[in-house]
Amino acid sequence: MASEVYHHCKFEVPEIIFGRGLLRQVGSCARRLGGKNIFLVSDQGLFENGWVDFVMKSLTDAGLRFVYYDQVTPNPKDHEIEQGALEYISKNADVIVGLGGGSAMDAAKGIAILVSNGGHIRDYAGNDKIYRPLPPMVLCPTTCGTGSDVSQFAIINDTDERCKLTIMSRCVAPDISLTDPDTLSTLPDEHVGSTAVDALSHAVEAYFSVASSTLTDVNALRALNLLSRSFVAAIKERKPEDMENLSRASLHAGMAFSNSLLGVGHALAHPIGGLYDANHGNVNAVLLPEVLRFDFPVVKPKIQDMAVALGSRWSDDEAGAEETSLETVVNMLESGGAPSSLRSLGVQSDDLELIAQRAFKDICVLTSPRETDESDLLTLLKKAY
Amino acid sequence: MASEVYHHCKFEVPEIIFGRGLLRQVGSCARRLGGKNIFLVSDQGLFENGWVDFVMKSLTDAGLRFVYYDQVTPNPKDHEIEQGALEYISKNADVIVGLGGGSAMDAAKGIAILVSNGGHIRDYAGNDKIYRPLPPMVLCPTTCGTGSDVSQFAIINDTDERCKLTIMSRCVAPDISLTDPDTLSTLPDEHVGSTAVDALSHAVEAYFSVASSTLTDVNALRALNLLSRSFVAAIKERKPEDMENLSRASLHAGMAFSNSLLGVGHALAHPIGGLYDANHGNVNAVLLPEVLRFDFPVVKPKIQDMAVALGSRWSDDEAGAEETSLETVVNMLESGGAPSSLRSLGVQSDDLELIAQRAFKDICVLTSPRETDESDLLTLLKKAY
Repeated sequence: MASEVYHHCKFEVPEIIFGRGLLRQVGSCARRLGGKNIFLVSDQGLFENGWVDFVMKSLTDAGLRFVYYDQVTPNPKDHEIEQGALEYISKNADVIVGLGGGSAMDAAKGIAILVSNGGHIRDYAGNDKIYRPLPPMVLCPTTCGTGSDVSQFAIINDTDERCKLTIMSRCVAPDISLTDPDTLSTLPDEHVGSTAVDALSHAVEAYFSVASSTLTDVNALRALNLLSRSFVAAIKERKPEDMENLSRASLHAGMAFSNSLLGVGHALAHPIGGLYDANHGNVNAVLLPEVLRFDFPVVKPKIQDMAVALGSRWSDDEAGAEETSLETVVNMLESGGAPSSLRSLGVQSDDLELIAQRAFKDICVLTSPRETDESDLLTLLKKAY
Repeated sequence: MASEVYHHCKFEVPEIIFGRGLLRQVGSCARRLGGKNIFLVSDQGLFENGWVDFVMKSLTDAGLRFVYYDQVTPNPKDHEIEQGALEYISKNADVIVGLGGGSAMDAAKGIAILVSNGGHIRDYAGNDKIYRPLPPMVLCPTTCGTGSDVSQFAIINDTDERCKLTIMSRCVAPDISLTDPDTLSTLPDEHVGSTAVDALSHAVEAYFSVASSTLTDVNALRALNLLSRSFVAAIKERKPEDMENLSRASLHAGMAFSNSLLGVGHALAHPIGGLYDANHGNVNAVLLPEVLRFDFPVVKPKIQDMAVALGSRWSDDEAGAEETSLETVVNMLESGGAPSSLRSLGVQSDDLELIAQRAFKDICVLTSPRETDESDLLTLLKKAY
């Protein structure tokens, strides 16, 4: 491995429980956190697939009551959070369980913020704006990309401003992250690739981040390795071992980016998601190759390890490592059927300047390894258009 | 990297703060945990080197009072813990700061157990015997081996029985692990190697453990890699970047073994430490090559990654990977001036059977990758004698 220089670092992750069949432990986890009346946040798709019932049974088996809230849509909206918070308060709930993809888990986090801190969710956008402790939380991911179950981030759509609010605070990391890879068995085909791309972007941006450290790098590289081995196979064949590797990659990438933060890819993906309600993974898929090209010149000492993680043999050839890393990522995206242009996602060319302006204000720009301004971001957007 | 099969896993680490100069934050950490009157546990060596004063100043700067307790010796003793607990209670302390090597930190943990749970420290030996919450703890390692600052273990000497008590409980992991590699600058030469060997053993045994997981392996392998790069150089030249790598290796190895537990090496080292008050790192140094030989036959799929972490190029040659891994470890130990026989540490051949008997009851045997009995352990001891 290459030599690296790190400076100060902080690293914090929730208690992690990972394994097939372990969703049945969610009730005992919630009880351990002091819960008696659990606020269960999930969505209708998971209800139809039986996972919500599975969790309800686990809660009941642990002697707990619960309130079920499913008014959550992709790119969760401010008003969904507000309604959930009212429901939580009126039902006297005490512990929050979030079951689902990033949307359900971020909605759970948003509800936790409002019930303990009041106000509008917009008040908490930015870094460290939460002062009162949140109710205990158990988050159970059922996709393979978000990392929300371990992260110090929550992303909520501000529907008035048509933008995504990035809330960053150690408070929004849950107490327990519980991943049961069996839940991926019912994930619709089109979401396997799009959520795994999110994990891939998290791993790359976390690895390149100026706030990366030895503690985040080991996780980012392991995520890249797991994805290089199982991304395409999981999408095509859905074998349980490959699906489990995607779950694990999502977890490792989440542990990395929660502590090192991200870069220009997510800074750009947030305003696009806010303006168009677009699939977050698809937006990342389009941006990722351009993010790699943009960042490569300033992260040269880290690229050989990245190439090895992505499946290459170690080589001292720096340019070769860049090339094979990019090629591997692009091949993964293409084999996975990911979209390759912002245009194909419905992004309007007239909006590119607005997107660049908003991205420049996103918190993720702060940890970009390459200094950037609005015009760099606009150039990147045009290349991805 | 090799393919691996993992099953269920749990992973839990404290909040981690790492970086040169960061010991000055210990006061704000203790205050953040609600402290007003801090119980500072350290030892006389660190007092002489000025680090205790440094911490006292940080506590005072944070507006905190403190009580200083330094009645701690290597392989901390039950009566030292008891006296510390009485002192804590009589002075109405509220948060514990442990500053030092494994001895000071394990003593801090032992005191935390007694002040909140009462009884004799022997009552808590074994797995999960602690029922009442401990006072908040910040642990600051000043050696490069113990991992006690992140681990769910505390090892205390039972002076009546002349044995080490292994206490394992998630309660004894601190709230905050704060590593400032600058503190290694005053570590006596002979302790650099002996504590780094402990980290090396932690990494190897954690990596081989039956309870290892993707989450622990990334940390164990990174520890091995950092040690292979900096172990000998740090001992010989003490350059700050190599010393920092040892600190980092200790942290990674601690994160690994705290969650995957250890194996026969530590199972044997504990009774030897109990009987002879021997240096823990030196005992590990003697045992490690035999542990590798003992475990290799049952961990074959993991050895290539180990060899790569230890600095070899990837090769499909399994036997070659074993050989180079063993060679690298033995070379590190020899170049670091580590002892190579139990006899040279004063172990009596008449005691080998007793050691094997006690080791077989040690909790670390449970996670040994190779099924073992007393006679296996005795054979291993004889080889290391």
